[in-house]
Amino acid sequence: MDLQSLRANLRSWNQTGVKGYVALGSTGERAHLDEREYLEVIEAARAEVPVKYCFIVGAGQQSTVKTIAEIKRAAAAGADAVLVLTPHYYRPSITQEVLLDYYRTVADAAPVEIILYSMPGFTGIKIAPETVALLSEHENIIGLKDSLSDLEELKATLRLAPDSFAVLTGNGTVLHEALLAGALGGILAVGCVAPEACIEIFQAILDGDRDRAASLQNKLTPLASAVTTKYGIGGLKAALDMNGYKGGFVRAPLSAPTDRAREEIALLLNETQAILDMLRV
Amino acid sequence: MDLQSLRANLRSWNQTGVKGYVALGSTGERAHLDEREYLEVIEAARAEVPVKYCFIVGAGQQSTVKTIAEIKRAAAAGADAVLVLTPHYYRPSITQEVLLDYYRTVADAAPVEIILYSMPGFTGIKIAPETVALLSEHENIIGLKDSLSDLEELKATLRLAPDSFAVLTGNGTVLHEALLAGALGGILAVGCVAPEACIEIFQAILDGDRDRAASLQNKLTPLASAVTTKYGIGGLKAALDMNGYKGGFVRAPLSAPTDRAREEIALLLNETQAILDMLRV
Amino acid sequence: MDLQSLRANLRSWNQTGVKGYVALGSTGERAHLDEREYLEVIEAARAEVPVKYCFIVGAGQQSTVKTIAEIKRAAAAGADAVLVLTPHYYRPSITQEVLLDYYRTVADAAPVEIILYSMPGFTGIKIAPETVALLSEHENIIGLKDSLSDLEELKATLRLAPDSFAVLTGNGTVLHEALLAGALGGILAVGCVAPEACIEIFQAILDGDRDRAASLQNKLTPLASAVTTKYGIGGLKAALDMNGYKGGFVRAPLSAPTDRAREEIALLLNETQAILDMLRV
Amino acid sequence: MDLQSLRANLRSWNQTGVKGYVALGSTGERAHLDEREYLEVIEAARAEVPVKYCFIVGAGQQSTVKTIAEIKRAAAAGADAVLVLTPHYYRPSITQEVLLDYYRTVADAAPVEIILYSMPGFTGIKIAPETVALLSEHENIIGLKDSLSDLEELKATLRLAPDSFAVLTGNGTVLHEALLAGALGGILAVGCVAPEACIEIFQAILDGDRDRAASLQNKLTPLASAVTTKYGIGGLKAALDMNGYKGGFVRAPLSAPTDRAREEIALLLNETQAILDMLRV
Repeated sequence: MDLQSLRANLRSWNQTGVKGYVALGSTGERAHLDEREYLEVIEAARAEVPVKYCFIVGAGQQSTVKTIAEIKRAAAAGADAVLVLTPHYYRPSITQEVLLDYYRTVADAAPVEIILYSMPGFTGIKIAPETVALLSEHENIIGLKDSLSDLEELKATLRLAPDSFAVLTGNGTVLHEALLAGALGGILAVGCVAPEACIEIFQAILDGDRDRAASLQNKLTPLASAVTTKYGIGGLKAALDMNGYKGGFVRAPLSAPTDRAREEIALLLNETQAILDMLRV
Repeated sequence: MDLQSLRANLRSWNQTGVKGYVALGSTGERAHLDEREYLEVIEAARAEVPVKYCFIVGAGQQSTVKTIAEIKRAAAAGADAVLVLTPHYYRPSITQEVLLDYYRTVADAAPVEIILYSMPGFTGIKIAPETVALLSEHENIIGLKDSLSDLEELKATLRLAPDSFAVLTGNGTVLHEALLAGALGGILAVGCVAPEACIEIFQAILDGDRDRAASLQNKLTPLASAVTTKYGIGGLKAALDMNGYKGGFVRAPLSAPTDRAREEIALLLNETQAILDMLRV
Repeated sequence: MDLQSLRANLRSWNQTGVKGYVALGSTGERAHLDEREYLEVIEAARAEVPVKYCFIVGAGQQSTVKTIAEIKRAAAAGADAVLVLTPHYYRPSITQEVLLDYYRTVADAAPVEIILYSMPGFTGIKIAPETVALLSEHENIIGLKDSLSDLEELKATLRLAPDSFAVLTGNGTVLHEALLAGALGGILAVGCVAPEACIEIFQAILDGDRDRAASLQNKLTPLASAVTTKYGIGGLKAALDMNGYKGGFVRAPLSAPTDRAREEIALLLNETQAILDMLRV
Repeated sequence: MDLQSLRANLRSWNQTGVKGYVALGSTGERAHLDEREYLEVIEAARAEVPVKYCFIVGAGQQSTVKTIAEIKRAAAAGADAVLVLTPHYYRPSITQEVLLDYYRTVADAAPVEIILYSMPGFTGIKIAPETVALLSEHENIIGLKDSLSDLEELKATLRLAPDSFAVLTGNGTVLHEALLAGALGGILAVGCVAPEACIEIFQAILDGDRDRAASLQNKLTPLASAVTTKYGIGGLKAALDMNGYKGGFVRAPLSAPTDRAREEIALLLNETQAILDMLRV
């Protein structure tokens, strides 16, 4: 781990206008770290995140008791809230009923507020809109990160959940569409690489300037694909290095992108920056 | 078959501002009809479709030769263009290379222009954005109907295909988002039931009035889900009967929706109509 | 179509000890033929199939009424029984309840006996063991062809269905295991190419000579994979041409195997023949 | 945790004729335990496992480095060998090439021998037969546990791997078939519940008495389904309690089976015992 680089990145991101951070999500390689490293990352990040920002930490183990323990450790180390992944290893047993029980038990025990994390692309488990709606009634469950680019599903969730519940998109390829559909915001891998473009889209929606939002999204979408589904975390780390942040290496068995992939990423970064510069003139 | 009702529906739809029709798509139950019925539907529809409208007919068998024969029958019976489904029965063999060869051969032989039809929800086969881009170079292949609600995929296609190529969404739950992303239009099951709402969304986007588009889409989305993924063709036919059109029965083994599903559909129709009335005042 | 070659193949196969035939299954490219060709194949085959053999014909369209019509045509043209595929195009609607209704209605109307055909590899639809058990109570439904190589599923069906119900494997990679588990026989693509080996396995099981069965199966398994999942119908047709039968061309968009695949198939044919020769000495 | 019960179970199992143990596989709930519990289970088990038995411990984290660290801990605590699960969280990135690199790196570093663990039902990741064949060349990789009931796949692996490589089935529904196909043995959830029946099948195959093997397998198959795919680990634990072992509770979010499921399991246990008693007379 390179905590100095993490802290340097946070100091840079603090200048961009982001409203908060998620440390140790899928992109943050929580799955690759041990318990000690997990705490070190939280502590290092916490030291750089201004108090006014929301500091969320990823959590979620396969057993209820381990998840609760992890949340308590995260909270003790400074997390304002936790983003809790679905259990998924014993997949055939993880029904929507099991998810309801799981999240209620976890939320009862958690010392901080909980955001649900639905990531079917990695886990094979989806939190159904009806399940989200039921869980939104729990006072300690405040939101959902939905990582799909399937807007039918996201909009079904938005329809069933109360307005006070924070539905966030986890997919930068559809940020603008998700915001237009009523999502409160986003927790985005591509936000690490191109935070200004994401924030500009967010601001443009607030301003009612949808042309600006659409123009930016048009460039952000292929970049967001490249640093997630297409080239994975290795792609994202390469993009960080290219764009003034510190990416470094992804842990094995994942690996760095090929030269050709790097060229594609560089091109997409340039195009995103160019449109941003143009709009800001 | 009830061709009189089909013709009556078309006379009603002709008053709504639609730009064209697809007869015998998935919703049109082409898969349930025999060859004679297929031609009767084309002829009945053709008789009611004004010449200035685009009259597209569904086609696509498992073998190249049968597909070409079907297209020739459709063209002879009056189709202006055909919407050609991917072959899918011998699924493990249907690679993107096979799709390239298939569509090029079909397009070479077809007497009318071709629109690609990607419908993975029914076929298990997706036409990849890269494949669409290559096929868009064929002068007789003029567009694509993409039935997914996955906007990442749709936007990848829009990025790779030339501007002159007609990318159409086949999913009413994301009509507004697809149009904003650059889709030229839609071929929509929900368009049979609520054509005015769909057209109003289209017009609102043209007018740059995205609030109007978003408000309408907000109501259209659950209705579009209900008459497709949620209650299938039986649900759509029930909705037609409720909304002043003639739906009638879906063929077995599909079936009519339950009373509870009908109530839900009725409610969604009313909500969609209410917002439409409000916007038109 | 090359009906002369089909008839020549049947005359050859008649000498091998097979108990019957399925014309126009998946391997028989029913999906690629039109209605007239379908009847021509039945008639050509019927002319060569001795009366004492069971002559089964593939059937199964997407609508109940078309399936019944197809079965009546097949019966009129000489089918002793029909192998009826699950409907599958409107996949999300094809539940086990729909399958129950579908097969009961079809069986009520069919002038010949029915064998269920479960082929999830092509259709995405599985007939669950519990559904098979309920359908086995219908006097006109006499058996099942299960095409999976998943023995847990096959054995669940064997356990739930009555002994009088004919459970047949459709997967030559597990013929020997299926017979040991209680399957009555097989309907096998590889049976077109290497009928003697299949029959020898069947006979060895009857004789209680499981070493012989296992030795043969050991060679049959990779050959059976090669002419189905690995190289498809093109692979099977090439194997027929190599092994003294008439294979000819598969219809587009499927295609012939590469030279390398042909070499692999030739090797597997030789190995299967060698073990057969050795056992017969 | 109830280590006393674990030790009691081991003392009972030691009397049954098993050749070894896997502690902390999927059934052993490794995914539900923390690092300290993991070591306590190994130590408790090690104390009861006679030296002549093979004592295998489950391992496998998402990162290469964590997997190696876990293996070293397991080895230090007494494991003779480790059963190493595929990484799977970053699923789209886990290609066969990644698996090759992963297992080679792990095997180079591991102080004990490695058995590959392919469990697609939980992980979505399959180790392809060709990959197993390549990995079998590594001197520190001695075998594979294949958890599928798909015999085509298992037999493809048996064909490609050298005879000296230990291919083991992880699926009790096909134990007899897997052994006949050439598998060296099994690592079976149902082996916890009904070890004598499993061993009797193994012995019957050795004796060439396949009728005995088949009769037993006939009863073992539904029991094996019930304690895995059908009722999960909760079902297995209930079966242990019914059959003279100590099952206890599965950890949340998994749960105990319903009364009806318990009745079914009890019936299957009785049937398996009855056939075993009959054969032993």
